[in-house]
Amino acid sequence: MEFTAQIIADFLKGEIIGNPDECVNTICRIEEGSKGGLAFLSNPKYEKYLYTTQASIVLVNKDLELSEAVSCTLIRVADAYQSFASLLNLYQSQLPQKKGVAANSTVETSAKVGEGCYIGAYAYIGENAVIGNNVKIYPQVYVGDSVVVGDNTTLYPGVKIYQDCKVGKNCILHASSVVGSDGFGFAPGEAGYQKIPQIGNVIIEDDVEIGSNVSIDRAAIGSTILHKGTKVDNLVQIAHNVEIGEHTVVVAQSGIAGSTKVGKQVTIAAQAGLVGHITIADKTIIGAQAGVSNSVRTEGSVLLGSPAYDMKETKKSMIIYRKLPELYSKINLLEKELEALKKQIGE
Amino acid sequence: MEFTAQIIADFLKGEIIGNPDECVNTICRIEEGSKGGLAFLSNPKYEKYLYTTQASIVLVNKDLELSEAVSCTLIRVADAYQSFASLLNLYQSQLPQKKGVAANSTVETSAKVGEGCYIGAYAYIGENAVIGNNVKIYPQVYVGDSVVVGDNTTLYPGVKIYQDCKVGKNCILHASSVVGSDGFGFAPGEAGYQKIPQIGNVIIEDDVEIGSNVSIDRAAIGSTILHKGTKVDNLVQIAHNVEIGEHTVVVAQSGIAGSTKVGKQVTIAAQAGLVGHITIADKTIIGAQAGVSNSVRTEGSVLLGSPAYDMKETKKSMIIYRKLPELYSKINLLEKELEALKKQIGE
Amino acid sequence: MEFTAQIIADFLKGEIIGNPDECVNTICRIEEGSKGGLAFLSNPKYEKYLYTTQASIVLVNKDLELSEAVSCTLIRVADAYQSFASLLNLYQSQLPQKKGVAANSTVETSAKVGEGCYIGAYAYIGENAVIGNNVKIYPQVYVGDSVVVGDNTTLYPGVKIYQDCKVGKNCILHASSVVGSDGFGFAPGEAGYQKIPQIGNVIIEDDVEIGSNVSIDRAAIGSTILHKGTKVDNLVQIAHNVEIGEHTVVVAQSGIAGSTKVGKQVTIAAQAGLVGHITIADKTIIGAQAGVSNSVRTEGSVLLGSPAYDMKETKKSMIIYRKLPELYSKINLLEKELEALKKQIGE
Repeated sequence: MEFTAQIIADFLKGEIIGNPDECVNTICRIEEGSKGGLAFLSNPKYEKYLYTTQASIVLVNKDLELSEAVSCTLIRVADAYQSFASLLNLYQSQLPQKKGVAANSTVETSAKVGEGCYIGAYAYIGENAVIGNNVKIYPQVYVGDSVVVGDNTTLYPGVKIYQDCKVGKNCILHASSVVGSDGFGFAPGEAGYQKIPQIGNVIIEDDVEIGSNVSIDRAAIGSTILHKGTKVDNLVQIAHNVEIGEHTVVVAQSGIAGSTKVGKQVTIAAQAGLVGHITIADKTIIGAQAGVSNSVRTEGSVLLGSPAYDMKETKKSMIIYRKLPELYSKINLLEKELEALKKQIGE
Repeated sequence: MEFTAQIIADFLKGEIIGNPDECVNTICRIEEGSKGGLAFLSNPKYEKYLYTTQASIVLVNKDLELSEAVSCTLIRVADAYQSFASLLNLYQSQLPQKKGVAANSTVETSAKVGEGCYIGAYAYIGENAVIGNNVKIYPQVYVGDSVVVGDNTTLYPGVKIYQDCKVGKNCILHASSVVGSDGFGFAPGEAGYQKIPQIGNVIIEDDVEIGSNVSIDRAAIGSTILHKGTKVDNLVQIAHNVEIGEHTVVVAQSGIAGSTKVGKQVTIAAQAGLVGHITIADKTIIGAQAGVSNSVRTEGSVLLGSPAYDMKETKKSMIIYRKLPELYSKINLLEKELEALKKQIGE
Repeated sequence: MEFTAQIIADFLKGEIIGNPDECVNTICRIEEGSKGGLAFLSNPKYEKYLYTTQASIVLVNKDLELSEAVSCTLIRVADAYQSFASLLNLYQSQLPQKKGVAANSTVETSAKVGEGCYIGAYAYIGENAVIGNNVKIYPQVYVGDSVVVGDNTTLYPGVKIYQDCKVGKNCILHASSVVGSDGFGFAPGEAGYQKIPQIGNVIIEDDVEIGSNVSIDRAAIGSTILHKGTKVDNLVQIAHNVEIGEHTVVVAQSGIAGSTKVGKQVTIAAQAGLVGHITIADKTIIGAQAGVSNSVRTEGSVLLGSPAYDMKETKKSMIIYRKLPELYSKINLLEKELEALKKQIGE
C-alpha cells in the first residue's frame, strides 16, 4: 500500500509543508529513516534527526520551529505522537486477525463464548466462564471458573486468570501475567504463619492494558480494582485490595502494597514502591525508584526519593548529598578554627 | 449457611458483647460491612470503622478499649486476625474441590501419582516424577523429570518446576512461578562469558507458600533451600544456593543474591535486595527497598536504607537529609562569619 | 564414572600438588565436600574451607598462596572457576538429551522445523515459524507466527515468543520469559491514553542467555536488540527499542527503559534502573539498586547510587550520610559558639 502526503494530511487534518504528492509505503523511526518511509517527531531530543533523515514524510507538531532546512515533506498536526498513533492503529486494524476455536483447546460445557472469538491451542476456559464477542485468547491461556471477559479483549499466550475475576471490554493482557493469585495475607502464630484465605476477586474495568509478567492479587475480601483506562507495564506487583483510579499509569517493576488506593490520572514511574493502606491523590506523579510511605493528599503532587517527598526539594538534597564529604571537611575545619579563636580571645 | 454469634464464639472460644443470636451469612470488610456480614478489626488504623460499620458481627482483640458505642455484636478473642483466618479456612475447606486427572493432561508412564489428585488440562508430569496424595496440579503446569511433590500441595496454572527439584507437603505455588531455572553463573573469559552448568536443585520444604511470577534458581552444586513455613510473595528473585530459614517472610519484588543464608523468622520487606555470600541472623527485619550489603550477625536486628543499617539511625539520617540545603547554607554562612571574626580580631 | 587427578589435570593442563591417583566420582562445594568429591576454589572468601574440606581434589588458581597445610590433592590451573566450568560442561554434555516431537504438540503446517529437535507436550509453533537444528522446545512454549529460532537454542517450559521476533543460535531462554510483548507506548489524549501500536520486533543474537520471568518488549518501530553473548538474569525488564551490546551482563530485577543503548561488556547489577533515551559507554559497571538518569560517556565508568554517579564518590557520601545527625548537632553548636564569640568580642 502506498499513500501520498495529501491523503495522510487529509486523514489527520494536518498542513503539508513540501510536496503533497510525496509517497510513503512503510513506517520508520526518524533516526533510521529511508526513502518511502513515514516518521514522526515529538520528543525534542530527536529534533536533530529531522534535518538529516532520509524519511520521505515526517509528522511534526504544529508549533515546531525549524532551526534548519529540511529535505523531507512535513505534515504539521496538533500532536504528532497522537497522529502517528492514529495511523498505526489504522494500519494494524487492517492486518489479518486470528479467528476460530482451536480443536486442541478446552472450553468447559458450562462456559459461554461469544461470537467472532479466537481461542488458541491448549487454552483452557473453566466452568461457568463468560467470554464476550471478538475476544482473542491465545495459546496456553488459563481462564478460571466463573471468570468474565468483556468484548474485544485480548489475552496473550500464557495469561492466567484465577476463578471469579472480571476483565472488561477492550482490554489487553500480555503474556504470562497473572490475575487473581492469592493476596499475601498471613496471621503470625506460635506454630508459624497461618494463611488467611483470600476469598475476594480482581475487577479490571474497560480499556485497561496490562504488560507481561504482571502479578495482580485477588482481594482478601471484596475486590482488587483497576478502573477504566489504566495502563500497567511489565513486572508490576499489585497487592490485594489495591484500587487504582481511571487513566492511571504504572510503569515497569513498580509495586503497590495491600489496600492502597491510587487516584485518577496518577503516574507511577518505574521501580517505585507504595506501602500499604495509604491514599494517593489524583494526578500525583511519583518518580522512578521512589518509596512512598505516606498518603498524598494534594492533587498534582510530584514526589521523588525513598522515602519520597516533594520532587524539587528532593533534587536539592540530592545535589548537596554529593557534596557531603566536602561539607564534612568544612565542619571539621570550622570547629578547629573556632577553637583556635576561642583560645586566642580567652588569652 | 447462616451462623449465630453464639456458634462462632464457641468455635473461637471468644466472648460475646451484644446479641448471641445475631446471625451472619457472609464475610465482609469492616469499612464496607452490611447486615448479615461478619467482619474483623485488627489494624488500629481501621478502628474508626467499628463505630459506623453495618456488619452484624465483628471479631475484635480481647484487649481493645472501645472509645465509642458500637451497634454491632462483638466477639472478643485473643487475636482477631488469626480467629478470622480460622473461620475463613473452615469456610474454604467446605467449598467443592477440583478432582480427577484430565484426559488432555500428560503423565509420563514412569511417573507416580498418589490418590485424590487433580491434574488439569495440558499439565505435564515428567519421567520418574513422584506426586503425593491430594495434590492439585492446575492446567498448563510443568513438573519436570524426577521432581517430587508432597501431599496436599497445590500448583496453580502455569507453574514450572525443573527436573530434580523437591516440593514438600501442604505447599502452595502460585501461577507462572518458576522453580529450578539455572543460577546466573558465568566465568568471564576472552571469548565472552562461559556458562557454568547448574547441576544442583531446589528443595522447598513443607508449608511453604510461593506467590506468582517468582523465580527460584537451582543451585550450581547442592541445593537452593526454602525451609519449612517460609512465605514468599510475588515477583521475588531467589538466586542459586540461597538458603532461607524456617518461617521467614519475603515480600514482593525482593531479591536475594547467590549463596546468601537467611535465618529463621526473618522479615524481608518489599523491593529489598540482599547481596550474595552473606548471612542474615534469625528474626532480622529488613525494611522496604533496603539494600543489604553485609552480613547481619545480631539476632533481631532491624535494618533500613541502601546500604542498609540500623533502622532508627537510618531514620535520623533520613530526616536530616531533607534539611541538607539548609545545612549547606548554614555552613557557608558560618565560614563567612568566622572569616569576618578572624579579621576583626587579627586587626 | 570415576576420574583420577592425573586425567583431570591433563584435560585442564593443570599442575597436581598431591596424589595423581586420587579419584573422584562426584562434584561438590568446597564447604560441603566429601571423599570422592571434586571442588574448586575461586572466591577468596571461601579459602578457609580449603584447609578443612573433605573433598578429594580441589581446583585452585595457579597463583594461590597457601596459608596452611591441605589434606586434599590440589590441581593448579590458570582460572579455577573457568576450568571447573569446562568440566561441568563436559559432564553435562554426556547426560541423555531430550529428543523428538511430542504427539500432543502443535506445529502449524507452514512452519519449518530442523533436524534433531525436541518439541515437548503442548508447545505451539505458529505459521511460517522457522526452527533450526537441534533446538529444544520444552512443554507449553509458544513460538508465534514468523518467529525464527537458531540452531542449538533451548526454550524452557512456558517461554512465550511473540510473532516476528528472532532468536539466534546457542541461546537459552528460561521458563516463563516473554519476548516481544508490546512496548509501553501511549499518547495522552483527552479521552485517556491512546495505544501506540508496537509494530517492530525483538532480535536476540547468538549465545544469549535469558533468565526466568524476564520481559523483553518489541520495538515500537524497528527492533529491540540483544547482541551476541549477552546474559540476562531473572525478572529483568527490557523496554521497547532498547539495544544491549555484546557480552553485557544484566543482573536480576534490573530494568532498562525505552530506546536506551547499552554498550559492550557492560555490567548492570541487581535491581538497577536505567531511564529511557540514554547511552551507556562500553565496560561501564552499574552498581546494585543504582538509578541511572543520564548517559555515561566514559568507557569503564563505575557508578552507584540513585541518582547514580561515580562509585568511589558515592561511597564517600554514603559514609557521611550515616553521620548526618552528628553533623547537624555540630553545626548547631558551631552557630551558638560563634554567636557567643561575636557577643564577647562586640562587648
